[in-house]
Amino acid sequence: MKHGGDLLTYKDKYEGDLVDFSSNINPLGLPDGLKEELMEAVDDLKSYPDIKYRSLKKAVSSYLNCHSDNVVLGNGAVEIIDNFISLAERVIISTPSFGEYKYRALIHGKEIIDIPYISHESPDIGLIGRDLQAGDMVVLGNPNNPSGMRLKQGDLISIYQLVKKAGAYLLLDEAFFEFCPEDYDSIDLFKDDGYSSVGIIRAATKFFALPGIRLGYGCACPLTVGKIENIKLPWSVNTLAEKAGTFVFKDEDYIKKSKAYIEKERTYLLSELKKIKSIEAFNSQANFVLIRLLSSNEDEIFKYFLSHGLVLRKCSSFDGLDDSFIRIAIKDRKNNNRIIDLFKKWDKEF
Amino acid sequence: MKHGGDLLTYKDKYEGDLVDFSSNINPLGLPDGLKEELMEAVDDLKSYPDIKYRSLKKAVSSYLNCHSDNVVLGNGAVEIIDNFISLAERVIISTPSFGEYKYRALIHGKEIIDIPYISHESPDIGLIGRDLQAGDMVVLGNPNNPSGMRLKQGDLISIYQLVKKAGAYLLLDEAFFEFCPEDYDSIDLFKDDGYSSVGIIRAATKFFALPGIRLGYGCACPLTVGKIENIKLPWSVNTLAEKAGTFVFKDEDYIKKSKAYIEKERTYLLSELKKIKSIEAFNSQANFVLIRLLSSNEDEIFKYFLSHGLVLRKCSSFDGLDDSFIRIAIKDRKNNNRIIDLFKKWDKEF
Repeated sequence: MKHGGDLLTYKDKYEGDLVDFSSNINPLGLPDGLKEELMEAVDDLKSYPDIKYRSLKKAVSSYLNCHSDNVVLGNGAVEIIDNFISLAERVIISTPSFGEYKYRALIHGKEIIDIPYISHESPDIGLIGRDLQAGDMVVLGNPNNPSGMRLKQGDLISIYQLVKKAGAYLLLDEAFFEFCPEDYDSIDLFKDDGYSSVGIIRAATKFFALPGIRLGYGCACPLTVGKIENIKLPWSVNTLAEKAGTFVFKDEDYIKKSKAYIEKERTYLLSELKKIKSIEAFNSQANFVLIRLLSSNEDEIFKYFLSHGLVLRKCSSFDGLDDSFIRIAIKDRKNNNRIIDLFKKWDKEF
Repeated sequence: MKHGGDLLTYKDKYEGDLVDFSSNINPLGLPDGLKEELMEAVDDLKSYPDIKYRSLKKAVSSYLNCHSDNVVLGNGAVEIIDNFISLAERVIISTPSFGEYKYRALIHGKEIIDIPYISHESPDIGLIGRDLQAGDMVVLGNPNNPSGMRLKQGDLISIYQLVKKAGAYLLLDEAFFEFCPEDYDSIDLFKDDGYSSVGIIRAATKFFALPGIRLGYGCACPLTVGKIENIKLPWSVNTLAEKAGTFVFKDEDYIKKSKAYIEKERTYLLSELKKIKSIEAFNSQANFVLIRLLSSNEDEIFKYFLSHGLVLRKCSSFDGLDDSFIRIAIKDRKNNNRIIDLFKKWDKEF
């Protein structure tokens, strides 16, 4: 299973510090005060984390505006994705999307139905609904990775209605939710329905710049939460992740600043990338941009950027994309300019 | 699934700090310098852990005296147990033993064969070998939990030969290995055979007083390691656990001091417990002691100790034990004396 963020593999290829454009982490870094909070928590390492994660669930439910009984926790979003998928009979995915949906379904021996996105922006609702059965789980990224696009609210509601009617289940992977412009909030949207046929997964990993701490969380009906608690490994969220989670969600200032920062940089980066002739930069609502290479391939471009200290995400490992796609994270202005300048240079020289 | 270490559930039952005798953690606390090491690592949280855990595997292999290719890592020993068990066709366990062996086998839908221990000290080798088939996995605690007894070297070799002949697999859970008197080292014992039919799991959780950090590791042949890497979730060991693991194994002084400390306290505690008339304290080689209550039951004794601020481990949740058993951790002298004094008081008053 290919993932971004593996800088160590390339560290001998460049003299100096590599910049990671292959994983999509908040460029503002850790929230203020977290370091001090974690230092205090080091003394707690000599006890197990709370096996029921009572404080952390309370903090998450207050952040998500749902009930504690609706909260599931995991070692990153990926453990929760795995737990949900293990409950399904068939798994329906829309490609291209995050590779773990299919991979975890394979590991669990599930039948997989693979439906291509109609366009960069929309999954094929007709195809998703056509053969839907009880026990099916439709897994969608919202925003989707690598496209960076949110489901339109109308589309989401249509899909949910199809899923519910069929006795199936909808799993929304919203690990990049906070980076997107505010449109609707799935947690609110399905609250009145008690999340009866939908699970929504989010992560501290990306938005709070904490991929190293491994903290994912989600919202589902208590019955589904119970099923997941039943199969999941005990204590998979460690004491420091537990502590971080009770701290970061309260930092409204960091949340606001980060949203504004990403919005500004996304607008800037997209407008500059769209001027580059040798690439097609797709619209994105997230903190990453999918790019089609018009006169090159992922290996060539990857090497070129690596020779300048930048690690991109090659995309041919995504089902449905060939070697003419790459994905880049949105970072701070200085680094975003490095990407733009290098593409401009590439345009001129090749 | 019942586990020790859940103090929060009982915190309202006692005014003051509860002492945890229900989970078996090194009473000497964190190794010196670890706190400072982890503080430095907080800045690394903004990157993913190394998805291949190159440094950590090197540190573990050097500590275990095996090759990096033999090392598997996990979010505590329990994730590795789960990964191994998922590879088996049938799972053979010897009860009483750590409940997760059976529970994870159930979750993975495996057929389970449950063989009672012959005595407190020995599994039933005859029964284990009787019906052994290719694809079977024999899971044994070494030392076993809750008995605290190591497999005798001769027994272990007999079982391994049976397993190998049948094309089965032996999984040794040695999470408490370092607490035991030095007899043999399974990692050395099976090295010449290349761990062809055996996997050995250990943990930083208990011996390095780090249950909160979640770090388990094990040793197996590269083929089995590869199978596990293939199914396991990415990044399940977080950045701080990764850092702790590259630090603690080098602390030979802590290791030596801890072994001597536990040895001394075990000898003292056992000899004192054996004087108590209302209980039978079983021999143990580990850092915990299994106790049979001769004139009481687990609920009564649990409440009595809780009213004095001590949390014991009730044992009826172990298959094969009824409500006349409890387990206590070996702690520092002051706390060990609290256990002894309270039992003496119980003896007198009831």
